[in-house]
Amino acid sequence: MAPHKLLLLPGDGIGPEVMGEVKRLIDWLNAQGIASFETETGLVGGCAYDADKVAITDATVAKAKAADAVLLGAVGGPKWDPVPFDVRPEAGLLRLRKDLELFANLRPAICYPALADSSSLKREIVEGLDIMIVRELTGGVYFGEPKEITDLGGGKKRAVDTQVYETYEIERIAAVAFDLARKRGNKVTSMEKRNVMKSGLLWNEVVTRVHAEKYKDVKLEHQLADSGGMQLVRNPKQFDVIVTDNLFGDVLSDIAAMLTGSLGMLPSASLGATDAKTGKRKALYEPVHGSAPDIAGKGLANPLAMLASFGMALRYSFDMGALADTIEKAIANVLEKGIRTGDIAAAGAKGVSTSQMGEAVLKEV
Amino acid sequence: MAPHKLLLLPGDGIGPEVMGEVKRLIDWLNAQGIASFETETGLVGGCAYDADKVAITDATVAKAKAADAVLLGAVGGPKWDPVPFDVRPEAGLLRLRKDLELFANLRPAICYPALADSSSLKREIVEGLDIMIVRELTGGVYFGEPKEITDLGGGKKRAVDTQVYETYEIERIAAVAFDLARKRGNKVTSMEKRNVMKSGLLWNEVVTRVHAEKYKDVKLEHQLADSGGMQLVRNPKQFDVIVTDNLFGDVLSDIAAMLTGSLGMLPSASLGATDAKTGKRKALYEPVHGSAPDIAGKGLANPLAMLASFGMALRYSFDMGALADTIEKAIANVLEKGIRTGDIAAAGAKGVSTSQMGEAVLKEV
Ligand SMILES: CC(C)[C@H](C(=O)O)[C@@H](O)C(=O)O
Ligand SMILES: CC(C)[C@H](C(=O)O)[C@@H](O)C(=O)O
Repeated sequence: MAPHKLLLLPGDGIGPEVMGEVKRLIDWLNAQGIASFETETGLVGGCAYDADKVAITDATVAKAKAADAVLLGAVGGPKWDPVPFDVRPEAGLLRLRKDLELFANLRPAICYPALADSSSLKREIVEGLDIMIVRELTGGVYFGEPKEITDLGGGKKRAVDTQVYETYEIERIAAVAFDLARKRGNKVTSMEKRNVMKSGLLWNEVVTRVHAEKYKDVKLEHQLADSGGMQLVRNPKQFDVIVTDNLFGDVLSDIAAMLTGSLGMLPSASLGATDAKTGKRKALYEPVHGSAPDIAGKGLANPLAMLASFGMALRYSFDMGALADTIEKAIANVLEKGIRTGDIAAAGAKGVSTSQMGEAVLKEV
Repeated sequence: MAPHKLLLLPGDGIGPEVMGEVKRLIDWLNAQGIASFETETGLVGGCAYDADKVAITDATVAKAKAADAVLLGAVGGPKWDPVPFDVRPEAGLLRLRKDLELFANLRPAICYPALADSSSLKREIVEGLDIMIVRELTGGVYFGEPKEITDLGGGKKRAVDTQVYETYEIERIAAVAFDLARKRGNKVTSMEKRNVMKSGLLWNEVVTRVHAEKYKDVKLEHQLADSGGMQLVRNPKQFDVIVTDNLFGDVLSDIAAMLTGSLGMLPSASLGATDAKTGKRKALYEPVHGSAPDIAGKGLANPLAMLASFGMALRYSFDMGALADTIEKAIANVLEKGIRTGDIAAAGAKGVSTSQMGEAVLKEV
C-alpha cells in the first residue's frame, strides 16, 4: 500500500515544539512497520509572513490539497500585531479552512479523570464530561462579504462584517452532527440566536427539517446561544453533541474546553465533504490551544493536544481507530501516572518537559 | 419637587409577578414619604402582541421616552414562537433599546457570599467576584442592515445579518467603561475578535485611542472574545470592567452571570447619553434572567433581580445612592438569613414564595 501523505505545518510559538513530538511518534510508527506515513513540512502563519510576506503561500496550499491530511500546530503572536489584516498569521489558517472547504470542525471537550481537579468547576460538575462540539467552519461572519472598514472622513470610520448562511451549508453541518450523535449519546443541541438574527432563524429551520427528514431517531434540542453558554457552565453534562455556527462555535468551544480543566489536552478535526468517488475527505487536525508565545522555545509546552490531534487524524482520515485508541489510552495512562507539563502541574506529580512528555507517551504506545 | 416618572413594563411570564414586588416597594417608599414616584404601566412583548398585534405600541414607546426611567420585567415565551419575526416579543425590547438610544448596557456580575456554593464553580474561584460588564446595546449585528432571508428558489435560502460599528459608537461605550472603572477597580478589559472581524479591528483601535487621549490613569487590556470567555471561566476575578460589543456582550454577560450562582439575582441598566442641557439620560432597568414561562403564575419566581434593578434605577437615574445601598443591603441580609425562593434553595434554608420574598426585603428596608 502507498504511504499516507501528511503535511505538517508547525506554525508559530509552541507549534514547532509540539509538532516535534508528533514527528517522533510518526517516525517510530514508520520504523516499527505499524504504519506508513510520508511527511512534508511547510510554513503557515507568522513564520510564513517572515519568509514570504504572506500568511501561507499558494504552493503550501497546493500541498495541503494534495495531502491525505494536514497537521497544524498553532499560528499567531504579538510579534505580528502590526502586520496588515490580509496577511496576519490567522489569515493562513482561515485560507486553509476555506480553500480545502473544511466546513466541519469537531471539538471534543473531554474531562480526563486525572485532571478533573484542575478545572475551575466543581469536580462533580465536570467529572466524566464528554461533549462533542460541531462548529461550522467555512461560513458565517468569518467569510461573508462585505467585510471592510470605510473612511467617513474627519477621523471617522465605519466597519462592517457580514454573517451569511445558505441552506446547503446548514444542511451539511447538521448531517455531520446527527451522524456523530448516532455513534455517541444520540442527542444534538443546536444553538443560535433566532430571536435576533435572521441567520439564526434559517439555522433553526434547516436543522429542524434535516432532523425530521433523516434523523428522527436522534433527540434534537434547540437553545439560544446565550442561554446555551449559561447551560454549558451550569450543567455541561446535559449535552452530547452541540452544533452551532462559526462565531458562536469559536466562543462556546473555547468555554467548553476550559470547563474540562484540560485545555492543553484538547484536539480538533476540521473535515471536508467525503468525495463520492474516492471515499476520501480533506482534513486538517490541530490542537485547540493557541501558539502561547510567552512559553515558546523553552520546552514547557504540553504536546498532548497535538498528539491527540494526530490520534483524531488516524481515526477520521486513515480508518486506524485501533491505533487512535492506543494513543488516547497512552495519554490517559501518562496522566494517571502523574507525569505532567507545567500547565497541568499538580501537587505530588512529576514535572516534565515537552520532549519528556512526548517520550512518555511513546513508551506507553 | 415633582415626582419621578416611572414606566413599568412587566412583560411576559414571571415578569408581572416580580414587577409586583417592586410596585409594593415603591408604594411603601411613597407612603413613607421617603421618595416620590409616579408610576404608569404598559405592555411589551408577547402580551402586547396578544393585545395589539405588535410587540410594543407607538404610544407605549412615547411613554417610555417621556418617563424618567423604565422598569422592564421580561419578554418572550414558546407561546409566541409562531409569531412573525418583526412582531416577536423580543422586538419590543429591541425597539425600546433602539428608539431610546440606550447604547450602554451595564451588567454587574456579583457573587453574593451566601450564594457562592450554588455556583457550579469552586467557591474560591467565585467568592467575592464583582465584575461590571459594559455591553454596547444599540449597534452591531442586532441592528445592522441588510438583515434578511432571500429565497434562492428550489427550497434554498440565504440569510444575512450585518455587524456594523461606527467610530462614535465605540467611543461613547468606551468612555462609559472607563468612567465606571475609575469608580471601581480602575481596570478595563476590551474584548473583540480583531483577528477575524473588521469591526473588531476598529473596536480595538478606537478603544485604544480613547484610552490614550483621556483615560491613561485606567489600566487597559485587550483580549480576543474567545479567550476572554475562557478567562472568565478560568479566573473571573482578574476582571474589573469588561467592555464588548452587542453580541459578544450578550453571550459573555450571561456566562458571567452564571458563574456567580446568582442568576435570579442579577440586575441590569441600559443607559442613553446624558443630555447636556437637562443633565438627564434615558434609562431602562431589567433583570438579566428571562421570562421563565414554565414557572410563571405560580409564585415561584425570584423577585430579587427585579428589586436590584430598581436599586440600579435609584442609583443611576435618581441620584439616590444611599437608598440603593439600603436595598442592596436588604437583599444581602435576606439571603444571609437563609430566606430563599426555589431557584436558590439550599439545605437548611427557608423556602418562600415570590411575595414572601418581596415582603422580607421590604421588612429589611
Ligand atoms: C486563530 C483564529 C482565527 C481561530 C478562529 O477564530 O477560528 C481560533 O480562535 C480557533 O478557534 O481556531
Ligand atoms: C431577549 C433578547 C433579545 C436579549 C438580547 O439578545 O439582547 C436578551 O438575551 C438579553 O441579553 O437582554
